Amino acid sequence: MKLTVVGGGSTYTPELVDGFARLRDTLPVGELVLMDPAQDRLDLVGGLARRIFARQGHPGRITTTTDLDRAVDGADAVLLQLRVGGQAAREQDETWPLECGCVGQETTGAGGLAKALRTVPVVLDIADRVRRNNPHAWIIDFTNPVGIVTRALLQAGHKAVGLCNVAIGLQRKFAALLGVEPWEVHLDHIGLNHLTWETGARLGGPEGEDVLPKLLAEHGDRIAADLRLPRPLFDRLGVVPSYYLRYYYAHDEVVRELGTKPSRAAEVAAMERQLLTMYADPALDEKPALLAKRGGAYYSEAAVDLAAALLGGGGTPYQVVNTYNRGTLPFLPDDAVIEVQAAVGAKGASPLPVPSVDPLFAGLMANVTTYEDLALQAALHGGRTRVFRALLSHPLIGQYEYAEALTDRLIAHNREHLAWA
Amino acid sequence: MKLTVVGGGSTYTPELVDGFARLRDTLPVGELVLMDPAQDRLDLVGGLARRIFARQGHPGRITTTTDLDRAVDGADAVLLQLRVGGQAAREQDETWPLECGCVGQETTGAGGLAKALRTVPVVLDIADRVRRNNPHAWIIDFTNPVGIVTRALLQAGHKAVGLCNVAIGLQRKFAALLGVEPWEVHLDHIGLNHLTWETGARLGGPEGEDVLPKLLAEHGDRIAADLRLPRPLFDRLGVVPSYYLRYYYAHDEVVRELGTKPSRAAEVAAMERQLLTMYADPALDEKPALLAKRGGAYYSEAAVDLAAALLGGGGTPYQVVNTYNRGTLPFLPDDAVIEVQAAVGAKGASPLPVPSVDPLFAGLMANVTTYEDLALQAALHGGRTRVFRALLSHPLIGQYEYAEALTDRLIAHNREHLAWA
Amino acid sequence: MKLTVVGGGSTYTPELVDGFARLRDTLPVGELVLMDPAQDRLDLVGGLARRIFARQGHPGRITTTTDLDRAVDGADAVLLQLRVGGQAAREQDETWPLECGCVGQETTGAGGLAKALRTVPVVLDIADRVRRNNPHAWIIDFTNPVGIVTRALLQAGHKAVGLCNVAIGLQRKFAALLGVEPWEVHLDHIGLNHLTWETGARLGGPEGEDVLPKLLAEHGDRIAADLRLPRPLFDRLGVVPSYYLRYYYAHDEVVRELGTKPSRAAEVAAMERQLLTMYADPALDEKPALLAKRGGAYYSEAAVDLAAALLGGGGTPYQVVNTYNRGTLPFLPDDAVIEVQAAVGAKGASPLPVPSVDPLFAGLMANVTTYEDLALQAALHGGRTRVFRALLSHPLIGQYEYAEALTDRLIAHNREHLAWA
Amino acid sequence: MKLTVVGGGSTYTPELVDGFARLRDTLPVGELVLMDPAQDRLDLVGGLARRIFARQGHPGRITTTTDLDRAVDGADAVLLQLRVGGQAAREQDETWPLECGCVGQETTGAGGLAKALRTVPVVLDIADRVRRNNPHAWIIDFTNPVGIVTRALLQAGHKAVGLCNVAIGLQRKFAALLGVEPWEVHLDHIGLNHLTWETGARLGGPEGEDVLPKLLAEHGDRIAADLRLPRPLFDRLGVVPSYYLRYYYAHDEVVRELGTKPSRAAEVAAMERQLLTMYADPALDEKPALLAKRGGAYYSEAAVDLAAALLGGGGTPYQVVNTYNRGTLPFLPDDAVIEVQAAVGAKGASPLPVPSVDPLFAGLMANVTTYEDLALQAALHGGRTRVFRALLSHPLIGQYEYAEALTDRLIAHNREHLAWA
Repeated sequence: MKLTVVGGGSTYTPELVDGFARLRDTLPVGELVLMDPAQDRLDLVGGLARRIFARQGHPGRITTTTDLDRAVDGADAVLLQLRVGGQAAREQDETWPLECGCVGQETTGAGGLAKALRTVPVVLDIADRVRRNNPHAWIIDFTNPVGIVTRALLQAGHKAVGLCNVAIGLQRKFAALLGVEPWEVHLDHIGLNHLTWETGARLGGPEGEDVLPKLLAEHGDRIAADLRLPRPLFDRLGVVPSYYLRYYYAHDEVVRELGTKPSRAAEVAAMERQLLTMYADPALDEKPALLAKRGGAYYSEAAVDLAAALLGGGGTPYQVVNTYNRGTLPFLPDDAVIEVQAAVGAKGASPLPVPSVDPLFAGLMANVTTYEDLALQAALHGGRTRVFRALLSHPLIGQYEYAEALTDRLIAHNREHLAWA
Repeated sequence: MKLTVVGGGSTYTPELVDGFARLRDTLPVGELVLMDPAQDRLDLVGGLARRIFARQGHPGRITTTTDLDRAVDGADAVLLQLRVGGQAAREQDETWPLECGCVGQETTGAGGLAKALRTVPVVLDIADRVRRNNPHAWIIDFTNPVGIVTRALLQAGHKAVGLCNVAIGLQRKFAALLGVEPWEVHLDHIGLNHLTWETGARLGGPEGEDVLPKLLAEHGDRIAADLRLPRPLFDRLGVVPSYYLRYYYAHDEVVRELGTKPSRAAEVAAMERQLLTMYADPALDEKPALLAKRGGAYYSEAAVDLAAALLGGGGTPYQVVNTYNRGTLPFLPDDAVIEVQAAVGAKGASPLPVPSVDPLFAGLMANVTTYEDLALQAALHGGRTRVFRALLSHPLIGQYEYAEALTDRLIAHNREHLAWA
Repeated sequence: MKLTVVGGGSTYTPELVDGFARLRDTLPVGELVLMDPAQDRLDLVGGLARRIFARQGHPGRITTTTDLDRAVDGADAVLLQLRVGGQAAREQDETWPLECGCVGQETTGAGGLAKALRTVPVVLDIADRVRRNNPHAWIIDFTNPVGIVTRALLQAGHKAVGLCNVAIGLQRKFAALLGVEPWEVHLDHIGLNHLTWETGARLGGPEGEDVLPKLLAEHGDRIAADLRLPRPLFDRLGVVPSYYLRYYYAHDEVVRELGTKPSRAAEVAAMERQLLTMYADPALDEKPALLAKRGGAYYSEAAVDLAAALLGGGGTPYQVVNTYNRGTLPFLPDDAVIEVQAAVGAKGASPLPVPSVDPLFAGLMANVTTYEDLALQAALHGGRTRVFRALLSHPLIGQYEYAEALTDRLIAHNREHLAWA
Repeated sequence: MKLTVVGGGSTYTPELVDGFARLRDTLPVGELVLMDPAQDRLDLVGGLARRIFARQGHPGRITTTTDLDRAVDGADAVLLQLRVGGQAAREQDETWPLECGCVGQETTGAGGLAKALRTVPVVLDIADRVRRNNPHAWIIDFTNPVGIVTRALLQAGHKAVGLCNVAIGLQRKFAALLGVEPWEVHLDHIGLNHLTWETGARLGGPEGEDVLPKLLAEHGDRIAADLRLPRPLFDRLGVVPSYYLRYYYAHDEVVRELGTKPSRAAEVAAMERQLLTMYADPALDEKPALLAKRGGAYYSEAAVDLAAALLGGGGTPYQVVNTYNRGTLPFLPDDAVIEVQAAVGAKGASPLPVPSVDPLFAGLMANVTTYEDLALQAALHGGRTRVFRALLSHPLIGQYEYAEALTDRLIAHNREHLAWA
């Protein structure tokens, strides 16, 4: 089995490699190709990756290349974890929206649109090259904004599944609070990528007992504190919103916070410099503890699980993934990409049925879905008006004057990445 | 034919009476009953109403009463134009939301929810009494928020249609700019009450030529100025939003404006005092010019047209009304109340088909529809949590901290009108 | 010795009476007159006051009256602790400024100006009647805004000193943290009423060792938390600002908070209802614990101390009071009223010299002093323009559009208390 | 007579040169040295400058150099018009403050502090070199922020006068409206640089009739529109504030505007590129019309007038300049730099007496003066705390959280220009 990681020079890759090593029984990787345009990072990351496999006795081969076609040739699955423009572009995404009093974030709001516009054409080009080489290969997209990117891939007819670590993170947190094994917790997870709510937490599987009420009663304060959302909100809603909902439910507070502290991009960039220095140490043969603060916890578990299911019939039977709606949430278009529990196998992901959804969540999902639709139009076809329309449709923007100002700024700050600008 | 106006003591009634007088060929009213709990206003308004009928040679009879059952007895149609709590409650609706930086308005946002909570139980009680007296009578609802009130009436099984003057106002404005007669302009009007867009303006009927692009090209500046929305927005959207969309597209600007000028309620209250003094003059036998500033222009034309269609087979064939969606806008639930062109006749209103809707509008409609759903739940069943949920779901609120603060204020300011509080 | 308390029906009075009882050695009160226009409150409060004196074996007489002239007749000192318009007016002061995004508070900002406008004429009238009856009597003003009210009294030639409990509160807090007796802590306290900074805390007196640096080093977190100001601010400034500075240093945060919680006036009004019920209990003969939450801690200690110094040569030698500047702070006009340490005796208060003041504090004091000047002009002479000018001059307002809107609201909400409006 | 312009490569220089040419009777310049570190700009600007002199028959010589010592050698006066960091730094100054909801402007607020910090050390170094070469030379500072830079120069004992074009601009505007010659209008101009009010406009000189009331009555709307301040504000204040007061009186409106349009720096940068292209045309021998939009109107008139008075005994007797207060405004420290009418001659500038100042203006001046004091401390001595203190003291900032965030951003964006950072 051959797996390719596009963006394999990321400082995050050792986390993924560590997962492949630990979980080799679930997913027996024969060759792991790390592909990245940055040769220097590839050398550092690839070196550590090989030392991790070696230390853990993994028999697989790790190769590195800057050549995309060579990287994907013969791959059974291609994992996308790239960042067009790097942390510098992210820094921009997190900053200029604040000038208009809007949230600056890399997946939500105007910054997220900028990222989508930069990313979609690049990802579609990669996917085309994957398909030309291996029509049967699966594309697993970690690249944000996962919802829009996955929609772009599916609309273009690719064999793609979108993956995010929000659900697995909450599953682990809940399991720890409940004192059970992670795999025992089945989340009733609904929404769009980065706009999700856990409406239930069942023991043993989709038909298991829902212990979410108990969990909230006993550990609500802890969960609320972790997600930085007010405790009473959980009781009012009766569910656990993901921490990305904070950009909605506490929008003005977040804008104020973001305007009075350094950007997350700057933090991560600093951390990456530190990590790369560590990776250069030939004595290092495991992922350093600092990596845990880099973001993306449990991504490797989720990725192994998903790849195993798609490729080998292994993995857990139900997984939270991003895929076409096709009637699962009847208030959304069939071709919306939703993030829910799905049965995953060699034929792909089939969402489990979702019982009726609280209108409080449905309304917001419907609104954000139209944003994602318009964002994808802007990413595919470009043009100032399409960007403006996507921004105006976003429930966190919604005002003419901000949409205009953000449009100008988005274009000015991303001109080099936008073919049409 | 007997018509009853509940809230007939309103200073606005002479406008309606003037319409009945002018348009008596369309709608031959035999008896017009003005019902109102306030005897003194009823005397003033009723006196002027009779003088208007007399001057215009209308043969119909105008009676006044404070007794609801007597008022509706034998009525063919009942027009609801009441205001629970009067201008004083409206003043509140327009004020306390501003304390939280939210828009203060009597139909949109937190103020609109307060009005819905005060109004729905009262209207449902009236409708029950209408039905007991005349199971076949039509209820025409002008009472705001028309969307939620009409939904409440339809869910309770009443023969009801909701009516608003936004569409007729734009029809008149467009006709004047085009130099044609009002009835020649057919609007492609879509949305929810007070959340509508004119996506076309056709000459002669639903199949006529769409002159909206021409209208915008030639008179866009004038239309934009009247609606107080930025001119370029019209070009970006390609449609004409109603002026209530200003609360969305220019939200922060409106909040700032509202916070730095007196309330509309105070203006109207002052105007009403002036109008009532005029009405007391026995020499006055026509509606005074000042009434035009009171709001509600062309309501009487719309009301006559609608009543004629529902009762007598008269009226224009297509009218903009509020009624059940039933698949007209496929992205909304069937039992949402929408405001669109409908064929209106003795069996009620049947929406005309609507071609595909721009996602930019669909997303917002979907979100506001869920608000209306939750608002109606709160109005019917009460309780702090239901109020909170409705407020949190509103796209102009959407944040936990504001929804909490607004919930407290809404309840504190409306306690006397809320049976459960 | 005869003392009169104007506003003696306040629920706060038992605190004061308790102080007179406990500290009777310092200030031997022969007759204490409680004057208040509200007979019912006077009965409740007067009853408890007598029971407190009785229980503690105080030989003095407590009388109550609604007649001001009778109350002040023969008084050696008159304490002013009134609230024109009561908690209802305060509720207004705390609310309407929020509609314009400005802080709603009873002494600071637009609410404070409203209070000044209501209060100054009433206090000047009382002072005139005191002077007519007893030209030598001292007036001790607790009535807020103390700075402006004291300036009004001094400009009118009255024998007046203004008193606030901020300094004594901090003295007690510091003493507790230092493990010394309160009287051992001498604060270097500078500023205007409710705009003060502790620039030093000396052991033993004005020449004692300054332990403020030590205090901040050891207990800075605790002090910061109590004052609800960020810890690092204390290090940056090297001083302890009073908690009223929070309206300046954390203005927007405070506005947000005020807009999302009930008013302090509503809290106090509820507490007052509870307290009055307690006072009615004939078995109650001490101040109830709840009174501590009512505000005004240690006022009685400060008042006794000040009265003793002014009347009898007792009391502590240096006290923090409000009096004319007269060159103490050279960057302020001589006739500004400042709040500083002063030598207090039978001839009144003489500020101790103040060493050079950090420009960071001086600039804000200078600005607020001009506001107080303009506020007093508005209070004395009335008129919309004077109100506007005072508001525009306030550093927390300063903008044309808010000053206009606040002027309209201030007048609309206080018309009954403003002779000229 | 030899004059040196430091920053002579500015696109603005042709305006100055045109003034020297037109007004050569007032100020007979023998040699004009344009000094600038950018040789390419110097060539373009110097070429045009010579053609302007030639066309107007000016006998003086124009030389260009990148060598500062050579430039100032033998100069009678040195004009400073430099911009450390260029339009790129200005773009930054105008942008990052908006991220915290604060005004982004190159002289006012946090951006102005950044400019001060970059500029003061450079200007002091230049002044030292001027002094070493010509102890009697005058330094005329146009470089912003003029108030702080002039204070720095005076404190270091330099022969310096600060100059701004706000007063001359209003003088010209008033003269045009009155239909008189500019020199006939004497402004009662008070305040600090960029914080000024015209409290009178006298015909003929300091003792002439004050026609400001008449001017406001007849042309108030026009003046208000030009300054973009609300008309009623002029009536409330009875004076004409400079347009920089808009950053105070309409702060939030300005922030909103700045956040929703491109920066002024970007506009000017585009204009400068256009101007330099024009200057390269050897046929061009006059200042192009576009230059009028560049800002700085009438600077050349003011500069010639001031230089003539300082050097030759010519020029108009009273001029608006920036110099030490020395008791002119008694509520400010003697060593504050104020901007007022002064008698200017070979000994420098002596402010005319100023009658009593409205507290409404005095309070704001006092507050901004302390900011300028603290800003200069930060510019001279550096350090994060000094920057924080200056920001906190600014009346447009004043809040802890913003002062912290702005401090971080100021330092991050200006590190290359700050020796201590």
